[in-house]
Amino acid sequence: MFKTNEYFGGKVKSLAFKTKDCSATVGVMAQGEYEFGTTSKEFLTVTSGKLTVKMPGDDAWKSYGPNETMIIEPNIKFKVVSEGDSSYICLYK
Amino acid sequence: MFKTNEYFGGKVKSLAFKTKDCSATVGVMAQGEYEFGTTSKEFLTVTSGKLTVKMPGDDAWKSYGPNETMIIEPNIKFKVVSEGDSSYICLYK
Repeated sequence: MFKTNEYFGGKVKSLAFKTKDCSATVGVMAQGEYEFGTTSKEFLTVTSGKLTVKMPGDDAWKSYGPNETMIIEPNIKFKVVSEGDSSYICLYK
Repeated sequence: MFKTNEYFGGKVKSLAFKTKDCSATVGVMAQGEYEFGTTSKEFLTVTSGKLTVKMPGDDAWKSYGPNETMIIEPNIKFKVVSEGDSSYICLYK
């Protein structure tokens, strides 16, 4: 029913579902640094912990805490650092 | 690393992790009515969709939407109706 996705040897794990108007996942990341690629525009909201991200072309890293949303452009790669376990909800639009 | 929990034939699925100060899960529920039992106090925040719940002793159902948190006492059973897919984060304290 709900597909489980696993990345980076299980250090990032998510569950796929549908909202009223788009595909979505809820997920968790263990402490670490990761690089992700997008295919669609993503609205990623932290629900616990802290994610620090670096978008292509940016010099600076930016941190997002609970209830903060980053908007990620389609077809890019970006870096994420998770401090301890962090959780998120991601909407694909 | 992160344990996947599955209930009601996969209609409810969650990922277990740790916040700074407690155990937690993020999860998804398909459309349906469910009864859950608690062992600890739970702080359940809806992250998408809508959950309508009935606590023991209450006559009325109460609905929770995104960013709304229900506090659930330990050692009780309570009923939850999900309209379509809903997602949540739950903290166990």
